[in-house]
Amino acid sequence: MKKRLIYVCMAIGLVVTGAGSCAQAPKGQQEWAIALHGGAGRANNLTPEREAMYKVHLTEALEVGKAILIDGGDALDAVEAVVRYLEDCPMFNAGHGAVATAEGRHELDAAVMDGRDLKAGAIAGVTDIKNPISTARMVMERTPHVLLIGTGASSFAKENGAEIVPNEYFSTPARMEQIQRIREQREKESPMGTVGCVALDSKGNLAAATSTGGMSGKMWGRVGDVPIIGAGTYANNHTVAISGTGHGELWIRQVVAHQVSALMEYRGLSVQEAANEVIWNKIDKMEGSGGGIICVDKRGEVALVFNTEMMHRAWAKASGEWGVGSEGVELSEKER
Amino acid sequence: MKKRLIYVCMAIGLVVTGAGSCAQAPKGQQEWAIALHGGAGRANNLTPEREAMYKVHLTEALEVGKAILIDGGDALDAVEAVVRYLEDCPMFNAGHGAVATAEGRHELDAAVMDGRDLKAGAIAGVTDIKNPISTARMVMERTPHVLLIGTGASSFAKENGAEIVPNEYFSTPARMEQIQRIREQREKESPMGTVGCVALDSKGNLAAATSTGGMSGKMWGRVGDVPIIGAGTYANNHTVAISGTGHGELWIRQVVAHQVSALMEYRGLSVQEAANEVIWNKIDKMEGSGGGIICVDKRGEVALVFNTEMMHRAWAKASGEWGVGSEGVELSEKER
Repeated sequence: MKKRLIYVCMAIGLVVTGAGSCAQAPKGQQEWAIALHGGAGRANNLTPEREAMYKVHLTEALEVGKAILIDGGDALDAVEAVVRYLEDCPMFNAGHGAVATAEGRHELDAAVMDGRDLKAGAIAGVTDIKNPISTARMVMERTPHVLLIGTGASSFAKENGAEIVPNEYFSTPARMEQIQRIREQREKESPMGTVGCVALDSKGNLAAATSTGGMSGKMWGRVGDVPIIGAGTYANNHTVAISGTGHGELWIRQVVAHQVSALMEYRGLSVQEAANEVIWNKIDKMEGSGGGIICVDKRGEVALVFNTEMMHRAWAKASGEWGVGSEGVELSEKER
Repeated sequence: MKKRLIYVCMAIGLVVTGAGSCAQAPKGQQEWAIALHGGAGRANNLTPEREAMYKVHLTEALEVGKAILIDGGDALDAVEAVVRYLEDCPMFNAGHGAVATAEGRHELDAAVMDGRDLKAGAIAGVTDIKNPISTARMVMERTPHVLLIGTGASSFAKENGAEIVPNEYFSTPARMEQIQRIREQREKESPMGTVGCVALDSKGNLAAATSTGGMSGKMWGRVGDVPIIGAGTYANNHTVAISGTGHGELWIRQVVAHQVSALMEYRGLSVQEAANEVIWNKIDKMEGSGGGIICVDKRGEVALVFNTEMMHRAWAKASGEWGVGSEGVELSEKER
């Protein structure tokens, strides 16, 4: 517990340095780097106590990923393990603790992408898979497909030994109270919130993973950006790994994750410049509630950009630099 | 009938000129242009009689779209009307005549995008909507969402007055014989085939629409590139409208449609150069069965590029140039 508290205290100082201050990995030497998010949105419910709890869990999740990368493990294993941790934690909108649909059920989406060969796997609209991110990885590794949906995805998961749970497993008292408030029109439907992780490993491979319960109060089998490769999730060893969180429809329409990669590849922008361009010059100018992206590029540069009041996030690099936090203005925002 | 035959005969001469020979619309003057496809793949089943039949229907579909554009109508109306025609025609893998899943059922996907404001609508895994493209447009225009899936999408369609049909409506004797051959392992599962249309209207607006029955013999609720904005469908008034057909997983992993747009916007390539780059330098180098894309850019330039033996296709421009065909080498292929 002392260890946790130290992390939280360190984090308060570090997070305000944001991504803009990250040191560049020495050229020619592959260093690992990792970034994760736990959703973006308004900060009005973020009491100091809740913020401290978020920092504890974001830090724990970061440690899970760091341990794999420090040990020389694969970026793909790191991003899957981090997202599994966040899926299992009831504070985030993914796995246990996912938001509910208008009918009070849970429909989950997840995607993973391997920057080595652009292989990808995703599932959408699943109701009974405990860790959607691991089934998304199974889709990538055990089928010729990218995207499986609904009961078909569940059948595949069962055939491949994924842990199946009743839909109530995903419910928490907080989420069921939230859906009651939405039904009584005391709270608006929200398109926000998801979890994700991007990483560069010491072999120079990038990977991205994202998982979500989607939009609270959603209807009609709505699917957001998370399982859409190029929108909420993208990784390419030649450029960058990206995971998004926010108003998914905007992410789909702007092809956000691939847009960041294309700006780097075809216009020569840095990851920070590309992330700023997409969030501030595209997303921020659209009607909607915005959101954020986390990016780690092929050189280990980290960019965390959001146009909402807060984004739960954490990052670390082989150099020892790291940060964790929820509120705070990124340097990128000041610099634009 | 005579009119049809004349079209077919004209087409044989015109199609080999391909997209490379298209005249450029005069600068400052918005001219309409349209292109459509009806799937890409191997030419081994394409007897002269079947090819002639395809040309008749591709030409009819082209006339449907041309009539709207000549009349000053919207690109969005043109692409929807063309895709509805192709959905209703049993020769193409969309709507009536869609391929069957491993279970002998039909699961359909469709998407539409409006280049004016990057609005988009899509549905995936629907089993009872007669014209999926029109429901995709309803999603775009009547909801804040982009993608609805499965029974949720059907509920939305019913609430909005879409025509609902029993799943058997989509079956044709040819498709049911095909799924029998796949079950008996006399034919391989095929990821190919779909329909789509892209258009520029006289007001300078671009739109794209794509619809499919997906992959024959598909399992587990597999969804391909068609309903994935940026993969199989994309339109942006600043660049280009694109619709794809082929091995959908490759289209998703390469974010094909957005990639074409990004190469034009960020690297300054022409639509023909961008389409060639994506099909020949990205898709053609991946394992899989390839496919093709149709593109109309903001100046009315048309590019039709495929790395398969054939792509059913047709195009026309305000200048009076047009073409229709299935086999034949595009100029783009010779030029690369």
